[in-house]
This record gives sequence, structure tokens and C-alpha cells, in this order.
Amino acid sequence: MERPIYSLADIVACLGGQVLGDAQTVVSQIATLEKAGQGHIAFLANAKYRKQLEDSHASAVILGEADAELTRRPRIIAANPYSYFARLSAFLNPLREYAPGVHPTAVVDHGAHVSADAHIGANVWVGEGARIGARTVVMAGCQIGENATLGEQTRLYPNVSVYHGCVLGDHVIVHSGAVIGGDGFGIAMDEGRWLKIPQIGRVVIGDHVEIGANTTIDRGALDDTVIEEGVKLDNQIQIAHNVRIGAHTAIAGCVGIAGSASIGKYCRIGGSAGILGHLKIADNVEIASFTMIGKSITEAGSYAGIYPFSKNDEWRSNAVHLRHLGELVKRVKRLEHDIETLKGREAS
Amino acid sequence: MERPIYSLADIVACLGGQVLGDAQTVVSQIATLEKAGQGHIAFLANAKYRKQLEDSHASAVILGEADAELTRRPRIIAANPYSYFARLSAFLNPLREYAPGVHPTAVVDHGAHVSADAHIGANVWVGEGARIGARTVVMAGCQIGENATLGEQTRLYPNVSVYHGCVLGDHVIVHSGAVIGGDGFGIAMDEGRWLKIPQIGRVVIGDHVEIGANTTIDRGALDDTVIEEGVKLDNQIQIAHNVRIGAHTAIAGCVGIAGSASIGKYCRIGGSAGILGHLKIADNVEIASFTMIGKSITEAGSYAGIYPFSKNDEWRSNAVHLRHLGELVKRVKRLEHDIETLKGREAS
Amino acid sequence: MERPIYSLADIVACLGGQVLGDAQTVVSQIATLEKAGQGHIAFLANAKYRKQLEDSHASAVILGEADAELTRRPRIIAANPYSYFARLSAFLNPLREYAPGVHPTAVVDHGAHVSADAHIGANVWVGEGARIGARTVVMAGCQIGENATLGEQTRLYPNVSVYHGCVLGDHVIVHSGAVIGGDGFGIAMDEGRWLKIPQIGRVVIGDHVEIGANTTIDRGALDDTVIEEGVKLDNQIQIAHNVRIGAHTAIAGCVGIAGSASIGKYCRIGGSAGILGHLKIADNVEIASFTMIGKSITEAGSYAGIYPFSKNDEWRSNAVHLRHLGELVKRVKRLEHDIETLKGREAS
Repeated sequence: MERPIYSLADIVACLGGQVLGDAQTVVSQIATLEKAGQGHIAFLANAKYRKQLEDSHASAVILGEADAELTRRPRIIAANPYSYFARLSAFLNPLREYAPGVHPTAVVDHGAHVSADAHIGANVWVGEGARIGARTVVMAGCQIGENATLGEQTRLYPNVSVYHGCVLGDHVIVHSGAVIGGDGFGIAMDEGRWLKIPQIGRVVIGDHVEIGANTTIDRGALDDTVIEEGVKLDNQIQIAHNVRIGAHTAIAGCVGIAGSASIGKYCRIGGSAGILGHLKIADNVEIASFTMIGKSITEAGSYAGIYPFSKNDEWRSNAVHLRHLGELVKRVKRLEHDIETLKGREAS
Repeated sequence: MERPIYSLADIVACLGGQVLGDAQTVVSQIATLEKAGQGHIAFLANAKYRKQLEDSHASAVILGEADAELTRRPRIIAANPYSYFARLSAFLNPLREYAPGVHPTAVVDHGAHVSADAHIGANVWVGEGARIGARTVVMAGCQIGENATLGEQTRLYPNVSVYHGCVLGDHVIVHSGAVIGGDGFGIAMDEGRWLKIPQIGRVVIGDHVEIGANTTIDRGALDDTVIEEGVKLDNQIQIAHNVRIGAHTAIAGCVGIAGSASIGKYCRIGGSAGILGHLKIADNVEIASFTMIGKSITEAGSYAGIYPFSKNDEWRSNAVHLRHLGELVKRVKRLEHDIETLKGREAS
Repeated sequence: MERPIYSLADIVACLGGQVLGDAQTVVSQIATLEKAGQGHIAFLANAKYRKQLEDSHASAVILGEADAELTRRPRIIAANPYSYFARLSAFLNPLREYAPGVHPTAVVDHGAHVSADAHIGANVWVGEGARIGARTVVMAGCQIGENATLGEQTRLYPNVSVYHGCVLGDHVIVHSGAVIGGDGFGIAMDEGRWLKIPQIGRVVIGDHVEIGANTTIDRGALDDTVIEEGVKLDNQIQIAHNVRIGAHTAIAGCVGIAGSASIGKYCRIGGSAGILGHLKIADNVEIASFTMIGKSITEAGSYAGIYPFSKNDEWRSNAVHLRHLGELVKRVKRLEHDIETLKGREAS
């Protein structure tokens, strides 16, 4: 593969940082310390991997200031080597460009507004009144409902569904299979049958949000479901109607968030966690994987509730007692009382 | 947006209930008490929100009989205000209509039978022998396998996949990304390799079922997977082969139901719960979110099994003892024995 | 339905095994013992179902050697009746064939390489540089990214998305809605905003792998995500970037596997289980449904960590004590000390 090459001097001219060693060393790609070879630049996020640093065949490395002298090889010193690595990788690996225009097999309603700079891929449908902004890429098989709005420089990978009336900001990324704006789960029991409650709110997504593959975000029942700017959602997350997710919160895969829950800013939620409906989670809360949050959290901090695993037999012989834990506590209380009585008699 | 307007008198003429206050008050949309303004009708589901009722700018409200005098403003009194709200919202927000006909980009096999009253959207595929009933809407990007059957007035949102031979009833709603009739997970180990067991059953779905976005329902191994009428399924639910779900059961998002489980009627299952294979769940069972059901439930009632969350450090210092709970119980039993011995000696 | 019929003699000539009873008995389909009728062959996997065997209307049955004399009816005796059943069902139910060729509505880039023997269905997109092997079937609505490779005799059901550069082997099956090669969840915090880390690895999938509906497998951050040969994945599984899954491992629905985890060969993972990032799981490990694996497993065996469910009230009265389990252990320790003291004084 013919890739453009850059000297370390070129790189720090664009991205900042300081070169130590030969600034004319050239690289074309990022790699891990183990896999790196000629023309690769690797990074050391943690001094405990210094052995790998020694053994690496990378042409150059990115290091934090404290680690600047761990090696003699050509290197870039950065205040935050991990974010430097992110920026350098984006520099070396720009997103594939797609030419502006509407593919002949795409179906764009006469009443839709598609920027002349947007790319509409094969077999896409864009409904009446939908708006698609400049330099936005809608890849093959995406379906954009009536009156939906996509901002500028947003990218939808293949087979994304956006329902009518939903709004995505600028620089949003949506991965394949994601569904934005499906009906919230609103039903009312009426004489032995469920009545459907129309879901007339929208989904409103801020700028710089990323949404993972097969994640679903339901439209609001009456008001909107809101994903604030900079939120990062992994794959297969379920966000129910009228949820609000605060800016810059990051949520790992398979998390479920029930209706009308409100999550703060800068939260981090681990994989397969769950949050019940109508709860409020403060800013800067961290929730462990596999933890079910059953009441609101008003204070920043780390929270967990994971049943520890063990060998099957061991688990079985312990878990059976969980159904009698309340009883066990009472037995201990009775023992404490009896001991006190016995000690009292002894003393007397 | 030009919306039709209705007087309260019009509304009770259609939907029943009783007007108190000015019956000529007009409304055009439903809203929450907080967000409602001129032309909106709100509802009070619970008297504890009476403060919001006072403060609301709604033109009218829906109230239960017991709450009829909580306000002086124009109001509709209904026996069940929540289901009245559902019916009124459906009345004010009819589903978007799609004109009958097959979009020119849709591919309908010569051997398929599509009602002249059905709508087949852009880039849809309808396989040989498939049947699509009157007034059914199949939106863009749906794929309908060979010999599948969709009833009447059923609606598939974009990018739904229905496999060959599956049957959907009338008035069924399926949201984007749902997959109906994928192969069940049937494999047999044979000399170090898994053999695939062909899944030759179907999925059969009754009338008035709703299926959420990205929910998957597998076809049966030999017999069918069955979803009875009126079942409501939220998003990202996984229903394995040969499961049967009884009529009017409602299941929240991210639930997994393993093969051949049989769920009763009118059950309610919370988000991210799980049910193991081959179990039987009685009618009217309620299962809490995040609860794993590992044996059959023969009696109606509410069931739960959730590990309570706490601050991370607290969780850690408690959870470690779960691996020794059986031992702890033995220690308590020994103490009880010793206490009895000591008490016995004292008494003697 | 006109189905071909086979005598038991025909069947053992193809698949091995031994006929007892009338070898000219003809069958055309597999069925369960309960549902089987004229022309059906059923199987008995476990002698405890012998009552069903007696009552069945099956024309013939498959039995293990030890059960050969449980019935007088025509029967095939096989060393492993379950895998015999799998092979016979595949013989009686061959996959639907699709004629070679590219559907006129499919969009195949000029720079793609599609075998003349492959079938490309309606409304499929195949990007530049993609390669599709002989006898591979790509059904309607699939999207194949640039430079992706599908091997031979592989089958993609409708609406599958394969991202650029990913590699699928031969005889792979992918069900609808699966997404292969979406970006891994790689972000770096930088002055209050998340930077996206480009995901430049691929997904590489071995031969004879099956991937369930709506399962997602993320591409690697730098190196590849790898699914070895013969792995079987059920629906709605999430596999994060740089995971490696060893050959012939089978994973049930809704499992989440976090980044860089490495799973051994011949593992079996139950539904809705989870595995944290960077862990290593040995070969032949069995993990129970709903179990979260929070540290590496170095030894083959069965592992579990499931909170047992009970009636709601009972659960509540027990679970509350989990937040004080450490304290309870201390109370027991104190009691043990006190008892020892009392016993010591008594003895003296």
C-alpha cells in the first residue's frame, strides 16, 4: 500500500510536541510496540511496558515527558502521549473521502434538501422534508425518514435507520445498524389489551457524538430524547424514550438505559450496565460493567454491583445462602444477645 | 405546523368521558403538564403531581374521577386517564399514511403476492411466494424472504429483515433493524467440530404484536417459535428458537430468552432480564430488570434477583465475602451450638 | 410440499449407521417425537424420553446403540444420535440455492472482484477492491465495504454490513443485521473532549464460522480482531476491538466481550455473560449465563456468578444485607473470639 510518509519534524510542525533524536526519521503508520517495524511509530502509554519499548522495531516512538530518556531511539515527547497518539493516528489515517453527489440508485424525495456537497450512497432512501448538510456522507442502505435533519460533516455507515423528524448535529458518526428514533416503549393497559401510546417526541443529537453499531435510541413519548454534544456510545446500547445524556459522557457496549433517566456530563458507564427509568445520575459518575443502578446517584464517584464469579460448584454452595441472608443476620444478632447475657452473668 | 383542532366536546363525542368547564375549548396536541401551552391538553396520572397541574399552561387536562375537582380549568374526566390519554394521542397523531403501490426501486419476485392496497417502499426485496396483505406498509430497505407472510394493516419500518416462511399477523408493527426468523442456535459437537442443525421451523407472530428496533426472534429448530397476539416487545430483545410468548405479555429492552422457554400470558419482564432455556413461566408473572430466571415459575407474582450497587470500595469489601458465604453459615451454626452448650452448662 | 423421500437403506448408505427393522421404510423430513407423523424420522437423545418414543407416530427413529432395543419400530442406530440427526437434517433440508449472477439493482464497483459463481442479491452494494469468492451468496440489502474479502461458499443473509478491509473465510454464515468491522470504541480524553482513535485494524474471520443476527464484531484499533475457524456466535453478541476467539468456541446470545480479551478454544459461554477487557480465558472453559468474568481464567472448568432470584419481597429482605456483608463477617469473628474466651474461662 502506498502511504504518504512524514518526518518527525513534519509531524511536530503539525501537531506540536518535541523531537529527540533524528528529526528526519520518517514514518507512515502507527503500530503497537510489538508489531511495529520499519516506518512505524509506536507509543508508550505506561512506563511498565518499557521492556516492549526496548525490544520494539519501531522507527520512532511517542513518549511522555517523564519517560523521555527511557530510550535513545528517535522519539516525540508529548504532554499526553495517548492523546498525541490519537491525533497522530487521525493525521496518518484520514477517513476515506466520498465524492459529493447522489448515487443513481438512491431515492431522494423531491421535498428533501440535500446539500450539493453531501454524498448519498447506493440504495439510500431520503424522505420528504429531510435535510442533509454539507460534506455529510450517507453510505449505502441508510434510510432517512421524513423531516429528519443531518448536520454537516456527519457520517452514517451503511444500513443506518433514522426515523422521521430526528435531528443529528455536525461531525456526528453513526455506525451500521444503529436505529435512531424508533418508537419508545409506551403502552397502557386497557381492559386486558395494551394500547399503544404514540411517540411524538424526537431524538436530538448534538455535535461530535459517535453512535456504535446496532445501538438504538428511541424517540420521546411527548418531549424529546436528548444526546448532548461529545457523547460517545459504543455498540448495542439501548437508550429509551426521554432519556437525556449529558455532554462528553462515554458508554460502553450493551448498556441499557430505561425511560426518562437523566445521565450527567462526563460520566463513564461500563459494558452491560443498566440504569432504571426516571433516575438521575450526577456528573462525573463512573459505573462498573454489569452493574444495575436502581436509584439515583447524586454524588460523583465510582459505583459497582457485580456478583463475583467462581467455579461452578463453589458458586452453587455459596449462592444458595443468599436466599436466607436476612435470616442469617438475625441468627448473628441472637448470638450477640446470648453472648452478652452470658458475659453479664459471668461478670456478676 | 398546521394541525387539526378539536373542541373538548368533539373529543368526548369520539372517545367518551365527560367534560367539566368550557366544552368549546380547543386543543390540537397532547403535552406533558410542564411543557403544555396554548392548544395543548395534558393529563394527570397521579394526584401527587397536583403542583404541576396548578402551574401548567395547558388549555385543558385529562383527570380521573377522584381528581375531578383538583382544578377549575377545562377538563375531561375519564375512568382511566392514562388509557384515555393513549387513545386521545392516537386520535390526534394518526400514523403517517403511505400510498398503495410498489416503489420502482423495489424488487418483488414474480411469484410473490402483494395486495394492491399495500405500500412497498424504496429498495425493498420481496422473495418468491411471499404474501403481503392489504394496507400493509413495508418501508425502505426491508427484506422479505421467500414464502413469508405479512397480514393486513401491518407496518415494517425501514431495514427490517423477515426470513423465509415466517408469518406475521394483522396490525403488527416491526421497528427498524429487527430480524425475524434467523436460524436458531442449534449445533451438535461431532469429533471436535460443531455441526449445524438446520432450523426448519418458522416464526409465527399473532395480531397486534409490536416488535422493537434490533430485536431478534429466531425460527424454530423443528417446530415453530410463537409470539401470541398482543405481545409487546421493546428493543434489542433476543428470543431464541422454539420460545413461546403468551398473549399480552410485555417485555422491556435487552431481555434474552433462551431456547424452548415458554412464557405465560400477561407477564411483564423488566429490561436486561434473562430466562434460561426450557423453563416455563406462569401467567401474570412480573420479573424485575436485570434478573436471571434459572428455574420455572409456577405461581403468579413478582420476582427479582439483582445485586445491589454501592460505592466501588464498599462493594469490593462486601463482595469478597460472597465467595465464602457457605463457610460463614457454618461458622454461625457452630457458634449456635457452642452457645447452647454454654447455656446448658450454666443452667446445670 | 413435494419433498424427496428416502428409504432408511438410502440414508445409511449416505450417512452411515445401521438399520434395524424394515430398511425400505421411507421418510422425507425430521420431526420431534411428539409432532412426528407418517414420513417423519425422529430421534431419541436421552433414554428418559422413552415414553415419548412409545407414543410417537414417527415412521422411524434414530437411536444410540444402548437404546437400540427400546422400540421395535424401524430405526437407525448411530454412535452419536444427536450428531446423526444434525447430519440427516442437513441432508433432508439443503440450503436454498441461489443462481450465480449479480442482480440488476445491485451496485458492484468496477474495482471489485466478484466470482462468476457468486450470487449478489437485490440492492446490495460492493465497494471498490472487494473480493467475493465462488458460490458465495450475498443476499438483498447487504453492504460490502471497500477491499473486504468474502471466501467461498459463504452466505450472508439480508442486511448484513461488512466494513472495508475485513476478511471472512470459506463456508461462513452471517445472519441479518450483523455488523462486521465497525470501529472499536477507542477514545482518549484531551482537555475535556474525547478524541477518536482511528481504528485501523481489521476483522479476520476463519472458515466455518457462523455469526448470529445483529451480532457486532468491531475492527481492531491497530492490530486485527480475530475469530478463529469453527467459532459459533449466536445473536446480539458484542465483540470489541482486538478480541481473539479461539477455534470451535460457541457463544450464546447477548454476550459482551470487551476489548483485547482473548478466549481459548472449545469454550462455551452462556447467554448474557460478559468478559472484561484484556483478560485471557483458557481453552475448554465453560461460563454460565449471566456471569461477569472480571479476571483471567487459567484453568479449564465451569464457572458461574449468578445472583439467585426469588420472590420480590424475599429478595428485598435478603439483598439489603449484601451492603453490610463485610460487617457481618466481622461480627461473627467477634462472636467466635468471645465464645473462645468464655469456653476458656469455663475450662479454667
